[in-house]
Amino acid sequence: MVDIARGSALGSSGASELFQLLRDGQPRTRAELATLTGLARSTIALRVDALMRLGLIGPVGDAISTGGRPSSQFALNPTARLVLAADIGASHANLAIADLSGTILVQHAEALPVSDGPERVLSWVVDSGRSLIAKIDRDAADLISIGIGLPGPVEYSTGRPINPPIMPGWDRFDVPGWMQQHWDVPVLVDNDVNIMALGERAVAWPDTEHLIFIKVATGIGAGVISSGRLQRGAQGIAGDIGHVQIARGIGVPCHCGNRGCLEAMASGPAIARALRDTGVEVESGHDVVELVKHGNIDAVQAVRQAGRDIGEVLTACVSLINPSIIAIGGAMSQAGEHLIAGVREVVYTRSMPLATEHLSIVQSRAADNAGVIGASMLAIHHALSPESIDAMA
Amino acid sequence: MVDIARGSALGSSGASELFQLLRDGQPRTRAELATLTGLARSTIALRVDALMRLGLIGPVGDAISTGGRPSSQFALNPTARLVLAADIGASHANLAIADLSGTILVQHAEALPVSDGPERVLSWVVDSGRSLIAKIDRDAADLISIGIGLPGPVEYSTGRPINPPIMPGWDRFDVPGWMQQHWDVPVLVDNDVNIMALGERAVAWPDTEHLIFIKVATGIGAGVISSGRLQRGAQGIAGDIGHVQIARGIGVPCHCGNRGCLEAMASGPAIARALRDTGVEVESGHDVVELVKHGNIDAVQAVRQAGRDIGEVLTACVSLINPSIIAIGGAMSQAGEHLIAGVREVVYTRSMPLATEHLSIVQSRAADNAGVIGASMLAIHHALSPESIDAMA
Repeated sequence: MVDIARGSALGSSGASELFQLLRDGQPRTRAELATLTGLARSTIALRVDALMRLGLIGPVGDAISTGGRPSSQFALNPTARLVLAADIGASHANLAIADLSGTILVQHAEALPVSDGPERVLSWVVDSGRSLIAKIDRDAADLISIGIGLPGPVEYSTGRPINPPIMPGWDRFDVPGWMQQHWDVPVLVDNDVNIMALGERAVAWPDTEHLIFIKVATGIGAGVISSGRLQRGAQGIAGDIGHVQIARGIGVPCHCGNRGCLEAMASGPAIARALRDTGVEVESGHDVVELVKHGNIDAVQAVRQAGRDIGEVLTACVSLINPSIIAIGGAMSQAGEHLIAGVREVVYTRSMPLATEHLSIVQSRAADNAGVIGASMLAIHHALSPESIDAMA
Repeated sequence: MVDIARGSALGSSGASELFQLLRDGQPRTRAELATLTGLARSTIALRVDALMRLGLIGPVGDAISTGGRPSSQFALNPTARLVLAADIGASHANLAIADLSGTILVQHAEALPVSDGPERVLSWVVDSGRSLIAKIDRDAADLISIGIGLPGPVEYSTGRPINPPIMPGWDRFDVPGWMQQHWDVPVLVDNDVNIMALGERAVAWPDTEHLIFIKVATGIGAGVISSGRLQRGAQGIAGDIGHVQIARGIGVPCHCGNRGCLEAMASGPAIARALRDTGVEVESGHDVVELVKHGNIDAVQAVRQAGRDIGEVLTACVSLINPSIIAIGGAMSQAGEHLIAGVREVVYTRSMPLATEHLSIVQSRAADNAGVIGASMLAIHHALSPESIDAMA
């Protein structure tokens, strides 16, 4: 039967449809594109030209062409455009420039307190971003979008932090608006644990539809992917499990004002405090990790107990959303298998066999780069969406 | 620009695109459909004819036509085709015939033990379904699809129950295959709590993207809707929260073989047992509900405590997926506000303010019909999907 218009109904140029076909990296000829889409050859030619002008696709296969005929195959040109990815933590920031395939081309991390406020932190993102782009001999105009992770609740639709507890001066700050004074490209902002979940999935579990990423550091939080999609919830705070009360915590005050929260018992500072109470000299979660690496038995036991506490909260999470992967990251996960062992002990003991039979509880494989990789995924996914392509074309 | 083919790329007739436009019930003329889709008038004419032959759309607006010209507007014809919806519980079954808008046209419920096995139960569904269709003077051939809810884990993709604890003879039984010997239409099968979540949302919260439905009856389970989509999880057992351990339950044996499960403390039979232990003469959850309705203070307190136990598990759930509605249904929810009050007490006390500020914890509004309405939604959604429409056209 005759073809049906979707592009025109939405008022789009339709270039996006062609692009979505080429996005897989598979080279295709104009003839193949015509067969796959049902479009007229003349239309294909126009759209291929538009996408080439944008630099999103390019000719490929010159090597296999014979007899001097120019290649007629086209594919995604992943290096043509760039994204800037920033993972802003409580005290450190990690910045990367990635191409459209998500490959990190250059990267820089440094100590940067988020409490310095939005203008100082975002100025650093802009300045360092420009330096990184220059370092790889590229042009600032090659940037197609920006992804930023922040250590607090973010209203994803507007990119504004909402009552972030450790980010003075950031409440409801218009992060995309400020950034766009410097770079007029789409700016996506999300909670840091959410982007870590995206990064972890991209690096290690691309085919997994149901994944929970747990960050255990100064705080404790989760990023939730269900049905292949990052779940932000009704107020954008899905995954904020640090203040669920646990049995062992009864009476212990938490900085949130409540008592017995998971974060007050199993975060880096909480583990350090518990060790100090038993006479071990530690200041921070970092010290605890060092002690564990040196085989200190008190530190190992404290970390394992923290794992059990986290497992207690995760049993309900596992029953509720039935994930196939729980990946544990954040600074405290560098204590190695001891934290994971505590989590597994409780989750595997207390959950229904059907829920744990195919459940893997593992250390994050993306590790320190989960955040920037996830931020680049957010930026790339938006930039290459049909709506963005048609708006550019 | 020229229109782009999506239909042809998928090998479809494209009738679905036109139908998805008309599915909202808004009447449109052929000219309007041509403008909205970019299709040629001749193509529109062919597709309108195909959809009318299927009975899915019909002419409307005769009343406003003047001068004897026939009406040229078309819209979804919700009463043209029917779906059969079955909510099979542990001991009762509820059957309904609905039209394509989800309106229940006729309904029948009766005591039917699911333990009678699949052939007896499904034979009852077929026979009673035929009677209901005859009762409203319709033809069995008008049936377009069937939705069935079962009280156990179901592999949604195949419609087979998987290790259902209270359904002897049903393990891996091919429910769609058996039904299709009698009615050659698509058969969708899901867990009963999942379809209740769909039904509750359709009846009371159509605009809510994040909802948890809790069934409290002989067992306890949840149906989870995140980002507007029913979440089944990696093994299809998302929401199976009845066997999460709670603090108060330490040591209490559960029929699952574990100890301290929510279901062992807060289900109908568990509440009845707790009351018997204090000397109150009750046999079942139903008796407990009756006592509560008569103002028995022991029964009220026991039900409220069950609510607190459920709330304990829900605090982790609320933090993990950040819903805006928790609807509580199932037989024990007929104890009224006492159960809800216990849930609210714990969830509102123990959760972060941002997570509960816009969270409503309410009694199910769809009540006894949540299941059949949800089963009809499942059947309608499938039958009116683009793939189904193109397969029929």
